[in-house]
Amino acid sequence: MVGFIGLGIMGSGMARNLLEKGHRLVVWNRTRAKMDPLVEAGAEPADSPREVAERADVVMICVSDTPDVEAVLHGDDGILAGLSDGKLVVDHSTISPSATLTFASAVEEKGARWLDAPVSGGSEGAQRGTLSIMVGGDEASFQRALPYFEAYGTTVVHVGGQGAGQMVKLVNQVLVVVNQLAVSEALLLAQAGRLDLRKTLDAVKGGAAGSWMLANRGPQMIERDWRPGFTIDLQEKDLRLVLEAADELAVPLPGTALVFQMYRALQRRGLGLEGNHALVKALEEMCGLRVGGEDPPASER
Amino acid sequence: MVGFIGLGIMGSGMARNLLEKGHRLVVWNRTRAKMDPLVEAGAEPADSPREVAERADVVMICVSDTPDVEAVLHGDDGILAGLSDGKLVVDHSTISPSATLTFASAVEEKGARWLDAPVSGGSEGAQRGTLSIMVGGDEASFQRALPYFEAYGTTVVHVGGQGAGQMVKLVNQVLVVVNQLAVSEALLLAQAGRLDLRKTLDAVKGGAAGSWMLANRGPQMIERDWRPGFTIDLQEKDLRLVLEAADELAVPLPGTALVFQMYRALQRRGLGLEGNHALVKALEEMCGLRVGGEDPPASER
Repeated sequence: MVGFIGLGIMGSGMARNLLEKGHRLVVWNRTRAKMDPLVEAGAEPADSPREVAERADVVMICVSDTPDVEAVLHGDDGILAGLSDGKLVVDHSTISPSATLTFASAVEEKGARWLDAPVSGGSEGAQRGTLSIMVGGDEASFQRALPYFEAYGTTVVHVGGQGAGQMVKLVNQVLVVVNQLAVSEALLLAQAGRLDLRKTLDAVKGGAAGSWMLANRGPQMIERDWRPGFTIDLQEKDLRLVLEAADELAVPLPGTALVFQMYRALQRRGLGLEGNHALVKALEEMCGLRVGGEDPPASER
Repeated sequence: MVGFIGLGIMGSGMARNLLEKGHRLVVWNRTRAKMDPLVEAGAEPADSPREVAERADVVMICVSDTPDVEAVLHGDDGILAGLSDGKLVVDHSTISPSATLTFASAVEEKGARWLDAPVSGGSEGAQRGTLSIMVGGDEASFQRALPYFEAYGTTVVHVGGQGAGQMVKLVNQVLVVVNQLAVSEALLLAQAGRLDLRKTLDAVKGGAAGSWMLANRGPQMIERDWRPGFTIDLQEKDLRLVLEAADELAVPLPGTALVFQMYRALQRRGLGLEGNHALVKALEEMCGLRVGGEDPPASER
């Protein structure tokens, strides 16, 4: 039996893929109504994270942030209260690497094992089963979890020991947002220089200037299509984790810190649910220029 | 007859490819000795840029910076003194987009035409004939120059009117250096987090974090191989052009400006001839951590 705790936009898709691959599944979610569609599809409902840990051999967690993982682990009805020898806890949330080590120790004191396994690929990846999974922990636990990972992940990489999965996810986010800054500044300069933005994109995307962000979000930005692959709110939360980890490790990340401040400003403007490529709006706002148009409408100034 | 002015590391490779494709070629270089290998290969030497303009129908320029283009254009022995009706001047240098418009006007006053056609792909691309060429100017001139471009370029894109080629090149450089900042910060965080850098790269390079810089310069940075595809000195000069153009256009480019400052600092340390991926050394220097090792040797602190 496999357990799944946290049936949000990511977890619900992942849990459904486990069911569809024929795994017996017990689920719990803080908002009970979110369990209903999965129960109708064949999952068994539990009354608490503790019950999931009692009934399942492998317990997946997929919640939002470090305090949420802490909440489902600790307390009378938490996972730790239901854990016993030989069980495995897998955390798919993106959380603090240093808190991860504390959680892993608490789990191991119960005789169970821990993997941190944050994912990337968004809600679409969760639904289609095409997530990337970055896994930290011991090899035996990785092999034990692999059949479940393969239900919803296509790129599953064992990157190191406990905490390494979370750290690689943070490294991933640094690249994502600073590449996004590159695309934002490039398109703004191109706009100011009155270039044809599509021709510009075609001329540069295949060379040393190329990136996933440029190829995938560049055209969306030119169209001013701000639908999220990943929201500013989630990106801002992940960048807070990055900057906290960098602070603990005494590493300067000036570009990442700059992007964090820009996302923070956009949140205040109420744009937290737009896609992370709306980063360009922070620069547009500074100078009153607008990518893909002449000037912003008065309402956006 | 085609003319080529400026036989440096880029121009010599491009001129040689013109000869090898069977074009009759007249050449000039400020340092005369650099003409010798091409004259041995069949090019005709000229005594001045004026003589090149008198003898050739299409005159290519490939020099370092805006003042160098000005120098070969103006003066008693300059291109302008030798130009006449119907000739075409093509500038392969990377220079100021606004100065480009001034140069183009001066050329057109002589009844000749102008294309700005900066290249990317480095000295290897010039030698192998695999450059990318971003061309600004009118369509008829573009078509006229195309057979020559095809002698040394594989990606030749007509991006717009006069100056647009230079502007696209600057947009390209914004992407190149800010993507390089992303890779530098990501690898530094990974190093501080004691990750296996190669596994980390493999885990993230195929997804939303991916870029040409990560795939191509990431492994080189891990190996601490600072041989240049493009030097810090040239990158710093191109960024100065970017920031001057952005200043003229009143566009804020905070990330690009940050990288410029970092390259400036590395030049002062005497690293101007290392590859642009040595950007990471600016961050390493700030915190005393070293990508691909534990700590910097005392000499590098």
